[in-house]
Amino acid sequence: MSYQDEILPREKVFRDPVHNYIYVQYQVIMDLINTKEFQRLRRIKQLGTTSLTFHGAEHSRFGHSLGVYEITRRICDNFKRNYPTQEPGDGSWDDSERLVALCAALLHDIGHGPYSHTFEHIFHTNHEAITVEILTSPQTEVNQILSRVAPDFPQKVASVIQKTYPNKQVVQMISSQIDADRMDYLLRDAYNTGTKYGTFDLTRILRVMRPYKGGITFEIDGMHAVEDYIMSRFQMYVQIYFHPVSRAMEVILAHLLQRAKELYTSDSPEAAKLNPYLLMPFFHNEFDLDDYLLLDDATMTTYFAQWRSAHDSVLRDLAVRFLDRKPLKSVAFDDETEPLIPKLVELITKAGFDATYYTAINNSYDLPYDAYDPNLKKPMTQIELMQKDGSLVELSTVSSLVSAITGKFSGDQRFFFPREMLLPDSEMIELFEPIYEEFNHYILNDHITNPKES
Amino acid sequence: MSYQDEILPREKVFRDPVHNYIYVQYQVIMDLINTKEFQRLRRIKQLGTTSLTFHGAEHSRFGHSLGVYEITRRICDNFKRNYPTQEPGDGSWDDSERLVALCAALLHDIGHGPYSHTFEHIFHTNHEAITVEILTSPQTEVNQILSRVAPDFPQKVASVIQKTYPNKQVVQMISSQIDADRMDYLLRDAYNTGTKYGTFDLTRILRVMRPYKGGITFEIDGMHAVEDYIMSRFQMYVQIYFHPVSRAMEVILAHLLQRAKELYTSDSPEAAKLNPYLLMPFFHNEFDLDDYLLLDDATMTTYFAQWRSAHDSVLRDLAVRFLDRKPLKSVAFDDETEPLIPKLVELITKAGFDATYYTAINNSYDLPYDAYDPNLKKPMTQIELMQKDGSLVELSTVSSLVSAITGKFSGDQRFFFPREMLLPDSEMIELFEPIYEEFNHYILNDHITNPKES
Amino acid sequence: MSYQDEILPREKVFRDPVHNYIYVQYQVIMDLINTKEFQRLRRIKQLGTTSLTFHGAEHSRFGHSLGVYEITRRICDNFKRNYPTQEPGDGSWDDSERLVALCAALLHDIGHGPYSHTFEHIFHTNHEAITVEILTSPQTEVNQILSRVAPDFPQKVASVIQKTYPNKQVVQMISSQIDADRMDYLLRDAYNTGTKYGTFDLTRILRVMRPYKGGITFEIDGMHAVEDYIMSRFQMYVQIYFHPVSRAMEVILAHLLQRAKELYTSDSPEAAKLNPYLLMPFFHNEFDLDDYLLLDDATMTTYFAQWRSAHDSVLRDLAVRFLDRKPLKSVAFDDETEPLIPKLVELITKAGFDATYYTAINNSYDLPYDAYDPNLKKPMTQIELMQKDGSLVELSTVSSLVSAITGKFSGDQRFFFPREMLLPDSEMIELFEPIYEEFNHYILNDHITNPKES
Amino acid sequence: MSYQDEILPREKVFRDPVHNYIYVQYQVIMDLINTKEFQRLRRIKQLGTTSLTFHGAEHSRFGHSLGVYEITRRICDNFKRNYPTQEPGDGSWDDSERLVALCAALLHDIGHGPYSHTFEHIFHTNHEAITVEILTSPQTEVNQILSRVAPDFPQKVASVIQKTYPNKQVVQMISSQIDADRMDYLLRDAYNTGTKYGTFDLTRILRVMRPYKGGITFEIDGMHAVEDYIMSRFQMYVQIYFHPVSRAMEVILAHLLQRAKELYTSDSPEAAKLNPYLLMPFFHNEFDLDDYLLLDDATMTTYFAQWRSAHDSVLRDLAVRFLDRKPLKSVAFDDETEPLIPKLVELITKAGFDATYYTAINNSYDLPYDAYDPNLKKPMTQIELMQKDGSLVELSTVSSLVSAITGKFSGDQRFFFPREMLLPDSEMIELFEPIYEEFNHYILNDHITNPKES
Repeated sequence: MSYQDEILPREKVFRDPVHNYIYVQYQVIMDLINTKEFQRLRRIKQLGTTSLTFHGAEHSRFGHSLGVYEITRRICDNFKRNYPTQEPGDGSWDDSERLVALCAALLHDIGHGPYSHTFEHIFHTNHEAITVEILTSPQTEVNQILSRVAPDFPQKVASVIQKTYPNKQVVQMISSQIDADRMDYLLRDAYNTGTKYGTFDLTRILRVMRPYKGGITFEIDGMHAVEDYIMSRFQMYVQIYFHPVSRAMEVILAHLLQRAKELYTSDSPEAAKLNPYLLMPFFHNEFDLDDYLLLDDATMTTYFAQWRSAHDSVLRDLAVRFLDRKPLKSVAFDDETEPLIPKLVELITKAGFDATYYTAINNSYDLPYDAYDPNLKKPMTQIELMQKDGSLVELSTVSSLVSAITGKFSGDQRFFFPREMLLPDSEMIELFEPIYEEFNHYILNDHITNPKES
Repeated sequence: MSYQDEILPREKVFRDPVHNYIYVQYQVIMDLINTKEFQRLRRIKQLGTTSLTFHGAEHSRFGHSLGVYEITRRICDNFKRNYPTQEPGDGSWDDSERLVALCAALLHDIGHGPYSHTFEHIFHTNHEAITVEILTSPQTEVNQILSRVAPDFPQKVASVIQKTYPNKQVVQMISSQIDADRMDYLLRDAYNTGTKYGTFDLTRILRVMRPYKGGITFEIDGMHAVEDYIMSRFQMYVQIYFHPVSRAMEVILAHLLQRAKELYTSDSPEAAKLNPYLLMPFFHNEFDLDDYLLLDDATMTTYFAQWRSAHDSVLRDLAVRFLDRKPLKSVAFDDETEPLIPKLVELITKAGFDATYYTAINNSYDLPYDAYDPNLKKPMTQIELMQKDGSLVELSTVSSLVSAITGKFSGDQRFFFPREMLLPDSEMIELFEPIYEEFNHYILNDHITNPKES
Repeated sequence: MSYQDEILPREKVFRDPVHNYIYVQYQVIMDLINTKEFQRLRRIKQLGTTSLTFHGAEHSRFGHSLGVYEITRRICDNFKRNYPTQEPGDGSWDDSERLVALCAALLHDIGHGPYSHTFEHIFHTNHEAITVEILTSPQTEVNQILSRVAPDFPQKVASVIQKTYPNKQVVQMISSQIDADRMDYLLRDAYNTGTKYGTFDLTRILRVMRPYKGGITFEIDGMHAVEDYIMSRFQMYVQIYFHPVSRAMEVILAHLLQRAKELYTSDSPEAAKLNPYLLMPFFHNEFDLDDYLLLDDATMTTYFAQWRSAHDSVLRDLAVRFLDRKPLKSVAFDDETEPLIPKLVELITKAGFDATYYTAINNSYDLPYDAYDPNLKKPMTQIELMQKDGSLVELSTVSSLVSAITGKFSGDQRFFFPREMLLPDSEMIELFEPIYEEFNHYILNDHITNPKES
Repeated sequence: MSYQDEILPREKVFRDPVHNYIYVQYQVIMDLINTKEFQRLRRIKQLGTTSLTFHGAEHSRFGHSLGVYEITRRICDNFKRNYPTQEPGDGSWDDSERLVALCAALLHDIGHGPYSHTFEHIFHTNHEAITVEILTSPQTEVNQILSRVAPDFPQKVASVIQKTYPNKQVVQMISSQIDADRMDYLLRDAYNTGTKYGTFDLTRILRVMRPYKGGITFEIDGMHAVEDYIMSRFQMYVQIYFHPVSRAMEVILAHLLQRAKELYTSDSPEAAKLNPYLLMPFFHNEFDLDDYLLLDDATMTTYFAQWRSAHDSVLRDLAVRFLDRKPLKSVAFDDETEPLIPKLVELITKAGFDATYYTAINNSYDLPYDAYDPNLKKPMTQIELMQKDGSLVELSTVSSLVSAITGKFSGDQRFFFPREMLLPDSEMIELFEPIYEEFNHYILNDHITNPKES
């Protein structure tokens, strides 16, 4: 029997809190799970700094990746049972696509690094490009296993993730507005944070999902279930993913890595000691895939712990703020109040803070989670519903609920600054009291305000 | 208002997946949660290597500590409402004990280090002693906060954890056969592993729990609820906590740290490079509390990642096995088959493995979780039920279920060895085939067997 | 101690699947639960014919009434703890209102009869008026208990249910857009049907709920939780409460009772036998409260079972259709296609059905569940959010989601007819084939269509 | 295509609170569900008087029957996938047995009447015999459908329920110590009562279940999961099914029917009026299957409501006690205190109660739920575990937990009497005070006691 058809003598299961069990039948899948690249995902938190706001959210990308695999497996089972292809191109499901779909599902996040969003910003990496590199570079264990299926198999799996794979059904399983990835993370993040907003009826969604020539669609009977999923997702974004405290901690993280990069590429005394061995290639912008694969969340916090005794006071202080969870404070602003920010920065500087490291502007748009917006990436993101006569309608044209949030969602813009500006300790008050007072005049009801107008 | 009575202007809540919300009313509690010592618990997994068997079990001691606090708070609320003391020594609840109980609950695990069981074994630390040190040493943030309540308050809280506090009700809330600690971890570990065995009816247990002169007892009406708790706990031990794969990973961890300690305290080439900065004080047995508080799970895996390129092949190989999750295999043995182990060790050595680092005996008794056994620590561990006339009966005398497992549970003894002995790769087979064959004769149905007898 | 302050020696609990436990402290509440009028609610299904669509929905108004009591109790606890009144009229909570609130919550549905909506329509009863009658008539057990609290107490409780009670906080707890009634039934109906749509975060809603001078409001921080509740409610209406099959069964029920009423008030042979003893006063429109209180769901189905052997073929057939669950079929129509209905009725008549009993028009607006529409009953239904400076904003002005469904929801209009028109059995086909064919030309995609246009 | 192979064009689902969805593929199953005999199960409560103790337990046998079907379907799916037969008699699963298994599962309770246990006792019916009659009598809709599959098919299905079907795997799916019936009712009753005791890991049990030549066994790996199921079942019996209040209500029901039977078969004035039309054939012991199939829970309570105005005071009073839920009180007794019961009866009689109708002895053994006891019905009830070498061991020989309750469980014996004996109202106290006092001397801690000894 060829490797790609090798079925485990007995189905293997993983106990999973979200899906109860995850079922593995293929030897290929089992072997991929056991690679060092995949095991590394155990050490990368799914939600980064969000666990500092919602303490339950400590789960890793490992469980999520298994979950995306499991949902994809269930989709394939359903498609095979109910919509098996009769002839090529009939818009039904060709089950010989199953293995490529399962592998792409399992490996879609394999290129993620620690605190990806921030890390990528500072070191100019890209987790999607790295995912492709892991799949296609001969030195990885993942590539060696995929190559045993067929020489062109690694590239096939990569093209699914890159959305260039010709079978759009496979692509949309993994990546579309209602894909296995999103469905798993909403459920998993809701489960682990302990919120209920991410809950939707997965089984029903899977029942009304069906293949067609253009990819994946949903039977119109299931419109309300789809609607409910969209609402759950909306709630998770506004209530969990965009939480100001998590974003404040991400600001600290970014500034800390930025400072370290500056120090370790200069003649600073830091460079000689407290060596962040595994990060050095990144500071010097001379890293390869092996360097990248040695990193995980632990790498960060371990070196941060070393920097608690750093010579540089900014490095030391930011490390402490991150490890001991001392978030910056923030206020919302809009186009009208944005021009007041320089004044606030000026006051913060007067109070003794280096504005480069202690203030920031952060828009929730920037975050690595994309809210529902079918206008942005037209061809892919539309959710189509199939009517009884086979014609398709776009979701927002029939759902007034979805229509209400289509293209309108915007997140918020916030200005971040040291909490000492609001809650100075007694010693600082004596020194800087008029500054704090003035600063507070610019803040009303969690928003920047113009003190002259109020 | 004195610090100890300082109530938050508005009750603060933490969203929690197990208890839904955790409610904080005291400023003291809020301040303790914000200490660096307590925040560090976010970086220490509750279940250590168990997350390598049950991938959902990635939760930290931080959430557990909040959970123990919350259950204790609910116990106090219930006692205050239903059994308020009328005069000293009447066996009812004196609510002025609440704050010491809450602090002890919150901080009972504050001294835990990374992978405590193994770490303590290798470096001769003791997390309970360190807990007391953190509470009572003036340099910790925790101590500074507790001292603000009263000069002797830190010592009081410590004595609850040491079980020497005079009020046995407070002591038993935190530490007895049905205490807030166990109740939280059973529920939390069940939730995160995704198993259902740890589920019991917390609300009902809390309802039938009541104070008496000797500590805490349960109304006899709740006997079956207590029974159900004991059964849940039994199932969690045999199915989760004693899982052979987690124990295999713990063996690797212990051997890896042991090897590193040997290398870094000798003239090995390792000593000069790949410096495990934060571990060095422990290798040289010259650490203080500050050194200890810099450690977390991340410290371990970061240095292990560095050791992937170590010069020493054992160090390198064990680091890879730990990070890439390559557990040792194991078989059970009993008194009769134990004498065969040296023969197995001999074969393993012949196949090229250093038995010191690649074999081990591990009893589940050794694990840091104590199964139900009222005989072991008599005074504390008995569960007493209160009859309607106020007299007490010990649980196992009225429950045939509990009686069945009282003092009988034993766990199992297992011998651990490299999985290559069972599943050698092709190259090794050629070299050592007769050895593998002989080795396999000693193994039957997951147990060591005497090949001469079968 | 006066009766109204009489606290149970030990808090009594009811195990409840939705709230886990329901806690009773007052003797008054316990006594009310034990009245014959309240126990009768065990025999009246919460959702009537919906259990014929969702088989799990067999729960009674008894559990729901306890649930509304429990949520009200939790609201009072929260208000008492966080917003206790300092002086009359300060907009905070006066806990001496607790008992009237609890009693009104518990008894708000006490006047419901079997299949209320249909029954009221046929027999011109009104469950709200009957509720008031039960509270205030001296012969009921409920009145006797309430009167023991104070002579005017029954009337006070009644006025809460009638919304004329002066304290708007109490009124809105029981009856407003987010009241204890709706919150309990959404959760309970979701639990029992097994759907997830009705799930929202009750604990969080209760946390952000607060009293003010005009009644009850919500802190603006909780806006998304309120939004999520509104969405859950919307989903429950469109997916559960308005389900066409349940409405079809209600049509049969109404026609069956109508037919029986006609027969038993005429000289039909039925009148002499198969005596529906307990229904006779209603057929003759000569019933009093005692007659009403003898009725429950069982009364209906027992007499329907007797009518299985009725002389009248319509009575017999409709009884069989109801008991054996043979729903009518239905199609949606709109203003444009409504004029085609007489043609459909004509065809149905030609096929041998008496249109009076075998066809119907049913709008989901008619159903006894009111969807979210702040425009309809302005003063009561607005949900107000309190900003940090104490000012109020109406929900739909700040939530684009809620705004999207405000005043727009419409339900659907359906035409009901015998399923034989679509699925005739072989014998009937021979007789009426052209009629069926013509009938089918008027139906497309679940809607009435104009065959000339398609 | 033959009827037995007729697959629905699209799988039909029923939303179910316990199993989420119930999946129907066969036209036969769909048709059986739509029969009048099966629909009647909607009107028969699964747990009879238990809903008067646990108000959530209002679910009917309809949902349970679907649930047993669904679990059986999952077992068949699992057996087909993992243990397909290769040749007759090899101990593996022959999937041509699927339809008979599914039908037997769905219909196993079809013969149940209202409050079966009591009804059978009073009227000498037997629900198992009636089940067989419904399956095999040509006048039932069920039989007509089964006969379309094959002329001997109704008898085949009946023989599965009678346990005489040759394929023991099929028999044991429906009826053994761990069968689809028990697994569904434990989960469903736990869900609806809101208790957690009945919860066990269904998915895991199904995974370790396997066919063998002698029927069904479980892999030894799953021993703890089976153990956990047994414990759940034990808890459900002692905490839910044997609850004294439910048994007290059952005593009232039995005495009420007994009294009615006596009155309606005598010349009592009752016989002439308040005609319990549908019960009359049973009072006169002249009923046939059609009479039986007209009965449901509603029949009972409707006539009880009529009897509220009965001439006979005992009939009237017992009807009120049942409908208004006024349970008898009870005390436990043992062999030693049993001889005191006549004395108690004497006192009750003196206080004015007819002992025939107002006292009773009830053993929980008598209840229609059999607790785990492999000794009782040897061949069927043993749970066997399969070791890796294929040999079987009986569960209690390897599980000390199960061994602890094997053959030892006994339930309790209780004596039931009017609650007035303990809580007389003021008027009665005056009349009978010395009697009540004496009565109370015989009761201590919920048990009968010998007043001379205490």
